[in-house]
Amino acid sequence: MPVRHEQLEVRTKGKGLYEITDDVQENIDRHGVRNGTVTVFVQHTSCSLLIMENADPTARRDLEEFFDQLVPEHTDYFTHGSHIRMALTRTSETIPIVDGNMQLGRWQGVFLFEHRRAPHRRKVSVTIIGEQL
Amino acid sequence: MPVRHEQLEVRTKGKGLYEITDDVQENIDRHGVRNGTVTVFVQHTSCSLLIMENADPTARRDLEEFFDQLVPEHTDYFTHGSHIRMALTRTSETIPIVDGNMQLGRWQGVFLFEHRRAPHRRKVSVTIIGEQL
Amino acid sequence: MPVRHEQLEVRTKGKGLYEITDDVQENIDRHGVRNGTVTVFVQHTSCSLLIMENADPTARRDLEEFFDQLVPEHTDYFTHGSHIRMALTRTSETIPIVDGNMQLGRWQGVFLFEHRRAPHRRKVSVTIIGEQL
Repeated sequence: MPVRHEQLEVRTKGKGLYEITDDVQENIDRHGVRNGTVTVFVQHTSCSLLIMENADPTARRDLEEFFDQLVPEHTDYFTHGSHIRMALTRTSETIPIVDGNMQLGRWQGVFLFEHRRAPHRRKVSVTIIGEQL
Repeated sequence: MPVRHEQLEVRTKGKGLYEITDDVQENIDRHGVRNGTVTVFVQHTSCSLLIMENADPTARRDLEEFFDQLVPEHTDYFTHGSHIRMALTRTSETIPIVDGNMQLGRWQGVFLFEHRRAPHRRKVSVTIIGEQL
Repeated sequence: MPVRHEQLEVRTKGKGLYEITDDVQENIDRHGVRNGTVTVFVQHTSCSLLIMENADPTARRDLEEFFDQLVPEHTDYFTHGSHIRMALTRTSETIPIVDGNMQLGRWQGVFLFEHRRAPHRRKVSVTIIGEQL
């Protein structure tokens, strides 16, 4: 049961959620893995990972608004708001692969959560452990 | 070292923490896996996963109270409080299996954290990677 | 592809972040694993795990300050602040191993986040799945 490492580059244009579900699935398809797990890992400390509602965009706007209020920028003592928002969400998630597909719920999507205003190129590693059939 | 996929159905009766430790362990027992990992993955966007104190129920009540205050429902801008509470907790956890048992600390239990008031049937996938001895 | 279990003991001297990156990497080196994943799992309910900025100590102080304000101790209803801080951060993380090294970003370190004031001995399990080359 081999291990396969891939890396996504995600170009962000400021704060917010960027869906990467299809990019992760493409890597599973390319390797033909039918049965196993995929670990998604964000290699940064000022953006994070989130599995989140992907159908209703107002759910994502609410989330972004909530984090802006909970961790305001430019206050006296929080010069590192991006790191705090990262700490409150995720760095890695491990998702089952069943019959060649990530076993996500109906409304789940995989998102990079950017906490910086400026555009960035973000690296997300994708590690697939599993069996080809 | 094969991969085994199972799925739990958890019936919730409103907001709060529901322990699933024994249900996860039963699946490990049934497959006779002695050495490996188990990944628990919640397939929803309005409930989440948490490894939490399982001995003292007041710790769980405190947690539920904290989230109700941090993310109040029915405010002007948060119509998606469930999704925010989910984002602040977990979707997946990977737990070591040593000598056939999840290597949890003395006070750790695995919980589904329901964020909806109405009863729901929730799906939790359980993926076991490891060796039978 | 065997599974290897190790356990770290981390001695904490009060609240705050304690870096364990080198301790995790030493276990990977000792087993000579070149290609796989490592799962780090904290076996407690009053401390937690975090992958965090490791270069700038002010980022960590900001984070500690933020949590002290968000979850104050000694209030009427929060007698379990440690458990709430744990719930808001992480219990497990799975990190890719590529060419023998954890594939962390340039500024990422692995930290135990202690939420108790008194000194403690904390157990962190390290599970390595992968191939020796």
